[in-house]
Amino acid sequence: MRERLTMPPSEMYYKYLIQPYIDDDNRLSFYNQIQMNLTHAMMLSKQGIISDDTAKALVRCLLDMNAEGPSSVQIWKEEDDYYANFERNIINRVGKEIGGQLHTGRSRNDLGSTLARMNVRDNLVNMIPLVLDLQHTLLEFAEKYADQVMTGYTHMQPAQPITLGYYFSAIAEALERDVQRLLAAYDRMNYCTLGSGASFGTSFPLDRQITAKDLGFYGPVHNTMDAVVTRDYLLEIMADFSILASTLSRMATDMYQWTMDEFAYMEVSDSMAASSSIMPQKKNPAALEYIRAKSAHLAAGYVDIFMALKGTAFIHSREGAGETLHYYWDASLQLEAILHLMKDTLLSSKFKPQNMERVNQNFCTVTELADALVKEEGLPFRSAHGIVGKCVQATYNNGLKCTDITKEVMEKASLDEIGRVISWDTERIQEALSARRSVEGKDHCYGAPSPAETLRMAAEMREHLADFEGGYAERTEALDAAKKALFDKAEQYCG
Amino acid sequence: MRERLTMPPSEMYYKYLIQPYIDDDNRLSFYNQIQMNLTHAMMLSKQGIISDDTAKALVRCLLDMNAEGPSSVQIWKEEDDYYANFERNIINRVGKEIGGQLHTGRSRNDLGSTLARMNVRDNLVNMIPLVLDLQHTLLEFAEKYADQVMTGYTHMQPAQPITLGYYFSAIAEALERDVQRLLAAYDRMNYCTLGSGASFGTSFPLDRQITAKDLGFYGPVHNTMDAVVTRDYLLEIMADFSILASTLSRMATDMYQWTMDEFAYMEVSDSMAASSSIMPQKKNPAALEYIRAKSAHLAAGYVDIFMALKGTAFIHSREGAGETLHYYWDASLQLEAILHLMKDTLLSSKFKPQNMERVNQNFCTVTELADALVKEEGLPFRSAHGIVGKCVQATYNNGLKCTDITKEVMEKASLDEIGRVISWDTERIQEALSARRSVEGKDHCYGAPSPAETLRMAAEMREHLADFEGGYAERTEALDAAKKALFDKAEQYCG
Amino acid sequence: MRERLTMPPSEMYYKYLIQPYIDDDNRLSFYNQIQMNLTHAMMLSKQGIISDDTAKALVRCLLDMNAEGPSSVQIWKEEDDYYANFERNIINRVGKEIGGQLHTGRSRNDLGSTLARMNVRDNLVNMIPLVLDLQHTLLEFAEKYADQVMTGYTHMQPAQPITLGYYFSAIAEALERDVQRLLAAYDRMNYCTLGSGASFGTSFPLDRQITAKDLGFYGPVHNTMDAVVTRDYLLEIMADFSILASTLSRMATDMYQWTMDEFAYMEVSDSMAASSSIMPQKKNPAALEYIRAKSAHLAAGYVDIFMALKGTAFIHSREGAGETLHYYWDASLQLEAILHLMKDTLLSSKFKPQNMERVNQNFCTVTELADALVKEEGLPFRSAHGIVGKCVQATYNNGLKCTDITKEVMEKASLDEIGRVISWDTERIQEALSARRSVEGKDHCYGAPSPAETLRMAAEMREHLADFEGGYAERTEALDAAKKALFDKAEQYCG
Amino acid sequence: MRERLTMPPSEMYYKYLIQPYIDDDNRLSFYNQIQMNLTHAMMLSKQGIISDDTAKALVRCLLDMNAEGPSSVQIWKEEDDYYANFERNIINRVGKEIGGQLHTGRSRNDLGSTLARMNVRDNLVNMIPLVLDLQHTLLEFAEKYADQVMTGYTHMQPAQPITLGYYFSAIAEALERDVQRLLAAYDRMNYCTLGSGASFGTSFPLDRQITAKDLGFYGPVHNTMDAVVTRDYLLEIMADFSILASTLSRMATDMYQWTMDEFAYMEVSDSMAASSSIMPQKKNPAALEYIRAKSAHLAAGYVDIFMALKGTAFIHSREGAGETLHYYWDASLQLEAILHLMKDTLLSSKFKPQNMERVNQNFCTVTELADALVKEEGLPFRSAHGIVGKCVQATYNNGLKCTDITKEVMEKASLDEIGRVISWDTERIQEALSARRSVEGKDHCYGAPSPAETLRMAAEMREHLADFEGGYAERTEALDAAKKALFDKAEQYCG
Repeated sequence: MRERLTMPPSEMYYKYLIQPYIDDDNRLSFYNQIQMNLTHAMMLSKQGIISDDTAKALVRCLLDMNAEGPSSVQIWKEEDDYYANFERNIINRVGKEIGGQLHTGRSRNDLGSTLARMNVRDNLVNMIPLVLDLQHTLLEFAEKYADQVMTGYTHMQPAQPITLGYYFSAIAEALERDVQRLLAAYDRMNYCTLGSGASFGTSFPLDRQITAKDLGFYGPVHNTMDAVVTRDYLLEIMADFSILASTLSRMATDMYQWTMDEFAYMEVSDSMAASSSIMPQKKNPAALEYIRAKSAHLAAGYVDIFMALKGTAFIHSREGAGETLHYYWDASLQLEAILHLMKDTLLSSKFKPQNMERVNQNFCTVTELADALVKEEGLPFRSAHGIVGKCVQATYNNGLKCTDITKEVMEKASLDEIGRVISWDTERIQEALSARRSVEGKDHCYGAPSPAETLRMAAEMREHLADFEGGYAERTEALDAAKKALFDKAEQYCG
Repeated sequence: MRERLTMPPSEMYYKYLIQPYIDDDNRLSFYNQIQMNLTHAMMLSKQGIISDDTAKALVRCLLDMNAEGPSSVQIWKEEDDYYANFERNIINRVGKEIGGQLHTGRSRNDLGSTLARMNVRDNLVNMIPLVLDLQHTLLEFAEKYADQVMTGYTHMQPAQPITLGYYFSAIAEALERDVQRLLAAYDRMNYCTLGSGASFGTSFPLDRQITAKDLGFYGPVHNTMDAVVTRDYLLEIMADFSILASTLSRMATDMYQWTMDEFAYMEVSDSMAASSSIMPQKKNPAALEYIRAKSAHLAAGYVDIFMALKGTAFIHSREGAGETLHYYWDASLQLEAILHLMKDTLLSSKFKPQNMERVNQNFCTVTELADALVKEEGLPFRSAHGIVGKCVQATYNNGLKCTDITKEVMEKASLDEIGRVISWDTERIQEALSARRSVEGKDHCYGAPSPAETLRMAAEMREHLADFEGGYAERTEALDAAKKALFDKAEQYCG
Repeated sequence: MRERLTMPPSEMYYKYLIQPYIDDDNRLSFYNQIQMNLTHAMMLSKQGIISDDTAKALVRCLLDMNAEGPSSVQIWKEEDDYYANFERNIINRVGKEIGGQLHTGRSRNDLGSTLARMNVRDNLVNMIPLVLDLQHTLLEFAEKYADQVMTGYTHMQPAQPITLGYYFSAIAEALERDVQRLLAAYDRMNYCTLGSGASFGTSFPLDRQITAKDLGFYGPVHNTMDAVVTRDYLLEIMADFSILASTLSRMATDMYQWTMDEFAYMEVSDSMAASSSIMPQKKNPAALEYIRAKSAHLAAGYVDIFMALKGTAFIHSREGAGETLHYYWDASLQLEAILHLMKDTLLSSKFKPQNMERVNQNFCTVTELADALVKEEGLPFRSAHGIVGKCVQATYNNGLKCTDITKEVMEKASLDEIGRVISWDTERIQEALSARRSVEGKDHCYGAPSPAETLRMAAEMREHLADFEGGYAERTEALDAAKKALFDKAEQYCG
Repeated sequence: MRERLTMPPSEMYYKYLIQPYIDDDNRLSFYNQIQMNLTHAMMLSKQGIISDDTAKALVRCLLDMNAEGPSSVQIWKEEDDYYANFERNIINRVGKEIGGQLHTGRSRNDLGSTLARMNVRDNLVNMIPLVLDLQHTLLEFAEKYADQVMTGYTHMQPAQPITLGYYFSAIAEALERDVQRLLAAYDRMNYCTLGSGASFGTSFPLDRQITAKDLGFYGPVHNTMDAVVTRDYLLEIMADFSILASTLSRMATDMYQWTMDEFAYMEVSDSMAASSSIMPQKKNPAALEYIRAKSAHLAAGYVDIFMALKGTAFIHSREGAGETLHYYWDASLQLEAILHLMKDTLLSSKFKPQNMERVNQNFCTVTELADALVKEEGLPFRSAHGIVGKCVQATYNNGLKCTDITKEVMEKASLDEIGRVISWDTERIQEALSARRSVEGKDHCYGAPSPAETLRMAAEMREHLADFEGGYAERTEALDAAKKALFDKAEQYCG
């Protein structure tokens, strides 16, 4: 294809701009390349653009190569890119007269654009079930630990009681939005760009509906320039990936803290930990660290794609096309790692209820006492808040625990704050301060951390999850069916 | 609210962490603050949590402040934040006994979270019509210039003919996905977090459905921790904004090049240009430069939000909450600027058809000649491509134009490439090379740059646009209706 | 200056591209604008380019405006930018005949470039002493707490003992590199671009050495295109800022954890904390959270500048010039906040030695025991590590403490690991496990966390700090002297 | 080393967190790993920590492995990381009794940190000469084309004449700062962290000076925690890399435009171009596109490192250590590609002086006419600028060229602008408008685009380049000498 040029690529051009891309393409795209060429060849003949015999020879050749796998593509150093090598292999097998007709009515630009979509689609198809799997685990844990009271934090300070199951149900709810976004991204990008030529269509009477359908797309992207030039779907998917990663990084941050010696709410499995070459006591929750670290790569991937696109004109170029994928594959691999590691960490960790008991000591239930004063004494909340604040000062500041808030303490605090004494028995006070009573007392509050609400929400989310799984299955079954139909058609065609 | 603390904020704490936020909040949130408090007060009384009289006094006070506007909020230096000042103003007006009851069953965390959603929702409501307006202009231009033949580029080299209208229709198609994303983001975030307390719900029997509805939300976010802790919607919106900006930056890059002296396909209006203080001939298309520049800020905004979120635990904190908005408002202002400037640039520029005539000289039509050889001589495309490649070398390399490809040139090229002479009259060759014939000859190619296809697609996109506008109107009318209903209810309530 | 153009800026052009910039420029640049014009006017007359009388009138006018301050610059809506307004004010004061000569031999491009350097230089001059101040505090704390033993962590798990002072000395050492980078950045950017015209120099015989010297620069940037076009110094400085911020964010992360109820190694001052509107017990270390959050903005600033620059040609444009500063000022303000808040947090916090005592319980000293086995029993380290690992399993895994590693435990562990019994008295074992002994035993290890090494390093760093302060003073004194000399020269000149 | 742990790494842990790192480490670090162990073993024996015989056996083993190369390291799936495998190979060769002593007084943390510095140092040593090579080419081109007049642009509009050589000299001057930054980064990071243990030093009496010197470092990093924990040097280097890339991206943007059909100032070599599979005329300057695209990856790399570091505590962790290098190697490979491709593009391209002639037609010399009016008619610059602006309107706006500015045109313009007629012969006007005269007339302006100034600056920069090369040679020769000395010492030692 370099007839127009009188020199082969220079050594550096080959080293940096051809060789690395060819290796990647053969690994990533071979099977999609085959399918794309199969449908194109058959469509060309159906439209009377090439002869039936030519098309049959091409289809037979492609089916043979498909059976042989990626190694069937021999690589020559003087060719521009993977497709040039791919086509040359076909020409070597069936001759130039026939092989030279395969490229009729198209360009590497629409091929590349279609392949990018097929490859990225495969990537989404691989990723979504990992999220759904994690969702299953989270809902299982939400139910299993709906009753396990522990400290809820804000600003990493003890705030109010929650349950461990409630924590997981909160993450699960957040992940529902991630699944929605990923399915929406799939639906927005699953359109075919084949037949768009160099971004200007072609004068051959192609049928773009057929090829789109054969390849499992919903249909063609309409405008051939939009089809070849844009990569907004990459930005959308990488944004969706990085949003998901940001949530899992936050979750890993919590669990990382729970594994600290000072918390010890959980212990990761030895199989998810690293030890030290020098410190014999060490057990480091390395998988959790990596989840945090790897989430950074997703946002770096987003920035990278954005920069590659932003500076180009709205035309096809290497910068705006191939190079936008530069970190895509690695970044998505990192997300895959994060999803696996998080699920496996959850399933293999041990939680330590005894250490979660500090919830009753660390003053995180005093808001309940203020609420009780409002309800039972008819105080304005601001005044109740003030009384309890004084109770806290009188105990916490003297190194006492929450369980040391007594009748006398409250009497003094109320007198100071509102000028009159409120006198509750210590027992009544301590009942108001019970963590378990706190979470159970929120049963009637929609979405609050009570065991019952947690179970109710988990049940609802199980329904959503079934819907998501149905939606996912529908999409992948359609893909599989299209693929099977394409090969059946091809076999019959050259049969 | 600092009863628990025995010292006021330090000087630096005040300077950097309180004062700048208060100013912003008063400007951005005052009216939303009022509405949020109105519904909360009425709901508290409906649920029997506070008395009717108390609620009436509060509602009256809020309606008065609403009438007075943002200046009704006096600011004290010792208060923690905007809400603390807001509440103190109410207490000053109605007394502590009544004013102190307003905060029953809630926290600044759910208030802040709800306000962030209301403010960001306002921002989306402001932004979407700017995109729709630009879409109108693009479609108008697609139709107006559907027939204006010009050079289409790939790699910034002349590639194949397009029309100016076709170019605009390609951008318009890309923007449809942006509108879809923005509406989807709106629908995903328009849920209410009020009643979530500090992220742990509350023991008071709040009705979260009522407040959500009063504020125009679709309903409450279920899990109160998910409600207060997450800001994934900010990342989603900023991703959507930056994807849109990346496309407009690409469009601006084309137009910037079209204004170059060497292209001169268009001239921007003097009202969108800057001159030079020293070079008297200068007319710089400054608005186009800024569109490119400003698109960078959107991606910086994305990175910023991501970093603020990623490092935090899945708990409420300043880092994961307020600070995620740090560059949000400025970044969205930049997108607003981009959208206005792009539309105004389009509407005020002059296009220069005479300079687009070079399409017939710059060899961008030779693919048509190769296609003609395939169709009329039955050559494999690869051979036709080779012959035309040699025709180009024989002319272009000798400083000749595309119009210099003659019978003799093709005879020699064909003999060299395929070993036999193809002899076409020069006139027949030149007919195949006509740019207008090229675009018109693609009429039957779905989505290709022919005038007819361009008009067909524009008509379809007008229908989509009407749908988008309908969808937008539906959403904003619901918001307006909710707001009106809330104020009506409030007036009647304290009537 | 818009003579070339027949229309004023459009409404949107004015709203988004003129008005916001003028406000910023007047606030940021007025005094530097005056100085730049003073030296230019006097140089023009010295070079015989304008007359003495003209120059005197200009200088007098500038001195008057300087005395009046920024409000002396009236703004007209139809002018392009701040400089156009500035010049128009001069022309209004001294007439067009004289005022119109000020701009001889220059362009807004070199003015803008010079002002950007002066403004950014002011910013550096403001920032560096904040780092040096923090360094003072760190060294003071390194010395004060050189003896305060505490747990050192890796992977947030107890690792080996350190001292609190040692921790601060490690940060102080890291910050030395930040100071070096900032001073180097200053030295690399402190060159003058005045006289570079629109980036092409000028045909007037300007003396660029004089103006550079008058404005406190080391000299002129040589190449006038390099002078006007490049902003690499902005990227360098923002990189330096963000590197510093990343270290302080890490430090804040430690301190944030130390304030957790579960650690309680320190307590921040009430003046650096926020409370809760609902939870009466709450004291949130808000300043530390903000330090982490704000560090993100610096990296966002870096990305922003990079993107604005990267996509432009190596020519002057709005994108590559003015817009590169878009987030610069805010980002640097965030660093200023971080530096103040970190220093004030340190100075106002209380450390809690009693809670650091857990260093003797949490197994972080067992490496010392392994080392002792190597030294005293002549075991290979790998075997000693194995024995101690087994000791840890036998205790930790049974809920015991480090102080429970007894003679019997080690006997069994050694037999298991190396097939022979090592029998040490429990007392001898526990002596090897003392945290204080551990840090003191590292006295001879260069740079290790022993009190003596900490004090030695702090003393060395005090010398470095004195050098840094000297270097800083040298630079700022030169700036001040140049400024004074310029005004003296100007006063004398127009006498 | 996993004695403390009772389970091997899980399947996913191995797949994502061990296997990929081991492959990379073996490829990147094997030879540095050998050297680091050589010096450690000999130092241990010199300090009396291990016996001479043990050290000799270890040294012999390491020398053997060095001779065998990376394949000498067998990998076991159950080991944690590369070092664990490396050590196990040694133990297999020399027995546990001897091999187990190699790790005395150290940790994988200081090993990893030292290796990272050695590997990154190798990377810098490889990169800097590529910049110096490019600098040579730029200076050669600056001189060769010092006289080749062409259009200088601002805002991509013709602005004032420059020469092609001047353009290259401007880039060369900018690159001097990049070289300075890279050498400074080298000097700041070339300190050794070996002997820092797990970041807490060690109780063994190591001599950190010896090992630092043996490995070619300037000396040890003092504080062992600073040594192991910080990676600010990575951020500094990646910032320096990305700043350099941003300048080369800008240069590529210019050259990309120069290759456009509409400019045709240059033509890239066929060996640096790509053709089209469909459009026979196409010659795409692909290398230039890639230079722009690849520069994005450097900034993505910066963001990635920043994010990985920022969120961690100031302690050793996987996130803050190993994972900061995740995109480092690829990003630096992209810069390597950029530097090669830019140099090769320059050396193989053809410039087209005839097309640069438009400099005399495109009004970019009219500033000279305004300057001449100031000098020769004594007009204020603002008035001269106004007259010439009117001359431009009278010609340009009527489709005329700069060569059409005649006596009559200026007479009318001057009367309109200043109320009196300035009457210059057309010839005198056109002389003032000559592009060549313009650049030559700036000879006396320091740094301006005159041929003489360009040659003068190029000569100065050749001296700087010689200094840079000297500085580089000094550093690499010291490295080579240290390496040779280490191996000599090792050979002698085990004689």
